[in-house]
Amino acid sequence: VDRNNYHLFQPLLYQVASAGLEAPQIAFPVRAFLRKHKNASFLMGNADGVDTASKTLLVEGKPIAYDYLLVGSGTRTADFGLPGVAQHCLGLKDLDDAMRIRDRLLSACEEALQTTDPIRRQALLTFVIVGGGPTGVELAGALGEIRRHIIPRDYPGGVYPNAAPGGVYPNAAPGLNLGDVRIILVETGDRILDAFSGSSARYAENFLKHLGVELWFGERVVEITESAVKLKSGKEIATFTPIWTAGVTGVSPAGLPTVKGGRIATVPGLHLVSDPSVYVAGDLNWLEWKEGRAHPQVAPTAIQQGSFAAHNILRELRGQEKLSFKYRDKGSMATLGRAAAVTELGNLRIKGFPAWSAWLAVHLYYLVGFRNRAMVLGNWAYSYFTYDRAVRVMHTRHVFPSPENKPETPKATS
Amino acid sequence: VDRNNYHLFQPLLYQVASAGLEAPQIAFPVRAFLRKHKNASFLMGNADGVDTASKTLLVEGKPIAYDYLLVGSGTRTADFGLPGVAQHCLGLKDLDDAMRIRDRLLSACEEALQTTDPIRRQALLTFVIVGGGPTGVELAGALGEIRRHIIPRDYPGGVYPNAAPGGVYPNAAPGLNLGDVRIILVETGDRILDAFSGSSARYAENFLKHLGVELWFGERVVEITESAVKLKSGKEIATFTPIWTAGVTGVSPAGLPTVKGGRIATVPGLHLVSDPSVYVAGDLNWLEWKEGRAHPQVAPTAIQQGSFAAHNILRELRGQEKLSFKYRDKGSMATLGRAAAVTELGNLRIKGFPAWSAWLAVHLYYLVGFRNRAMVLGNWAYSYFTYDRAVRVMHTRHVFPSPENKPETPKATS
Repeated sequence: VDRNNYHLFQPLLYQVASAGLEAPQIAFPVRAFLRKHKNASFLMGNADGVDTASKTLLVEGKPIAYDYLLVGSGTRTADFGLPGVAQHCLGLKDLDDAMRIRDRLLSACEEALQTTDPIRRQALLTFVIVGGGPTGVELAGALGEIRRHIIPRDYPGGVYPNAAPGGVYPNAAPGLNLGDVRIILVETGDRILDAFSGSSARYAENFLKHLGVELWFGERVVEITESAVKLKSGKEIATFTPIWTAGVTGVSPAGLPTVKGGRIATVPGLHLVSDPSVYVAGDLNWLEWKEGRAHPQVAPTAIQQGSFAAHNILRELRGQEKLSFKYRDKGSMATLGRAAAVTELGNLRIKGFPAWSAWLAVHLYYLVGFRNRAMVLGNWAYSYFTYDRAVRVMHTRHVFPSPENKPETPKATS
Repeated sequence: VDRNNYHLFQPLLYQVASAGLEAPQIAFPVRAFLRKHKNASFLMGNADGVDTASKTLLVEGKPIAYDYLLVGSGTRTADFGLPGVAQHCLGLKDLDDAMRIRDRLLSACEEALQTTDPIRRQALLTFVIVGGGPTGVELAGALGEIRRHIIPRDYPGGVYPNAAPGGVYPNAAPGLNLGDVRIILVETGDRILDAFSGSSARYAENFLKHLGVELWFGERVVEITESAVKLKSGKEIATFTPIWTAGVTGVSPAGLPTVKGGRIATVPGLHLVSDPSVYVAGDLNWLEWKEGRAHPQVAPTAIQQGSFAAHNILRELRGQEKLSFKYRDKGSMATLGRAAAVTELGNLRIKGFPAWSAWLAVHLYYLVGFRNRAMVLGNWAYSYFTYDRAVRVMHTRHVFPSPENKPETPKATS
């Protein structure tokens, strides 16, 4: 059961958002996957609730009886109740989010070339990413490369429309001043990439600064409005494009008990404490790993837990004893840009080109489907050799709020 | 000036609609094209009107002065005032149209698997294409191949949900009966592909029938409702997916005089009779070709006229005499499916594999951009060898009208 008809490879979402990949290349149709599994069937729909007493899953009003239930519905963007985040921030959790960010970036550049109001132009050309975790950092790196390699080629010149009343579109070829394009990463702590070592974080910080990304440390967001990010320090950033990567919360069908972060606690066998027929795997699972912390909400956890839960169900069916989940730490990776990434596994820390090559290989390997791998590899090779991001196609032009346009109400990031 | 930020390669739109290509692969960013042309600049926006007296183009309220204006704004789907066409039919003129058709097909199959109402299921699985020109025929062929090669693999089994009240989702793997999936092409005349010879048309008809496409000749649509196509003969086809390829009308900025079909008449030099500074090229141009007919509204006309108009402007600037446009007929091509197409050039008529190879080569050649060519070729090779259409990713699930859902109002095809 899934509300989409595809499996989404979330680690590459930021590349769809930054116009490097076509959206369907990181999505694989569930039915294509199930062709190989004749005893499996797929129901597209939202899982609304679970009745564990009657062993029934409710999918958009349709009751489905189960013997075992494996829940892996993951997380969504969490706004922590901060005013304006749900209304005005763009998240980066699904294809729609990614395409909305792509459209917003392209629309902002086009409108910046047309407005005669320098204050509005600066807000249009300011892109703010909240959160210095891997998602925020990878997106910041990608936007930094767009700023450095794409803007000067697509918008050369730096001639703006005349500011006189009724401003005239210039006859000279208009273009953007690179200095006006700002990418700001806002982070509460004093460093990025909390899950990595200090030396990897410093390497990443230097690389991002080198790309022109501004890192604002020790700044806490208190409110987002339709045209600004307001910080606790009193600073305010005028922007129409605030992107929120500062946290997630679990999404689960009603009827299952949640603990902190909206996650669901399980025994080490990965089923509910109260019900051995309901298993939970992936980002949604809360099982202590070390020092009171649960397993990290990353792909290796989900892959290992999904497979482990299925095997425990099979063991029970065969009358064997269930086993306890042991996490195999596959390390952490984050890519920053061309030939730049950080990779850590235990005490092994690699940076730069070797880390980037490892990142490419691992992501291609885990991407589902030969065709998707070939297409993504083709796009990466193209971007590498041309310094280009080819998918600069605006699907839906974004209308930014202004006194003339009624402010639009974007879809909440949930 | 363009309302999109990309050039769209319309001849391959039907392949986006039928899940064979990713949308951005047939779109090329205008700014990427203009990188090579330092003296050109781009303004994204809708050209609302022209004031020929003051030589001003109005783009979303912004007046732009011109010395010469070259209008090539093409056509949109024409509904000929038939009730319900604009409200309920899907067109196939832009990326949004193509993605809407793709989402509609996928959504219909998923809902057909879930409904317990056999009448609703039949309407969901009936896809009607109105118009037997090249667009309708190419789309019918693509849908016929999906019916033959994809449906049996993605929806095997043919088990439907229980029709008892409160119908239960079956425990057996559900699937579609291939016989319930209908593709109907409705054409007013007694043959398809009017611009081709009778023998090419008969070859195409046989190929489509062989794929299971129903050809309904001599049938005229009188009304489209949210769940049916009504014909003059009194027949009615229950369907939630009527696709309209039965005609187009010109789209031009206000202030220019139009003749029939919404097109703009020009002198053989391709400028307005009344104003030698305004040129018109492509689908929008109405210039007599032979026997009282204008040039065909196809890509070769647009390519030749666009270039010719530009050269006539240059000739005038150099003080040379303007020339008269001579159309070089490049022939006609339509593809039907795997290794099947028809191609005609003068008395040369080829069919089958050679015609299909020629079609592939010509379309790859005219597609703009090395990356797009490589990606499209990759997708074609994948589809050819696997009999698959890989881009079966539902971007937005379509909610079909029903007593429970309020009927939605789809965007008009214009």
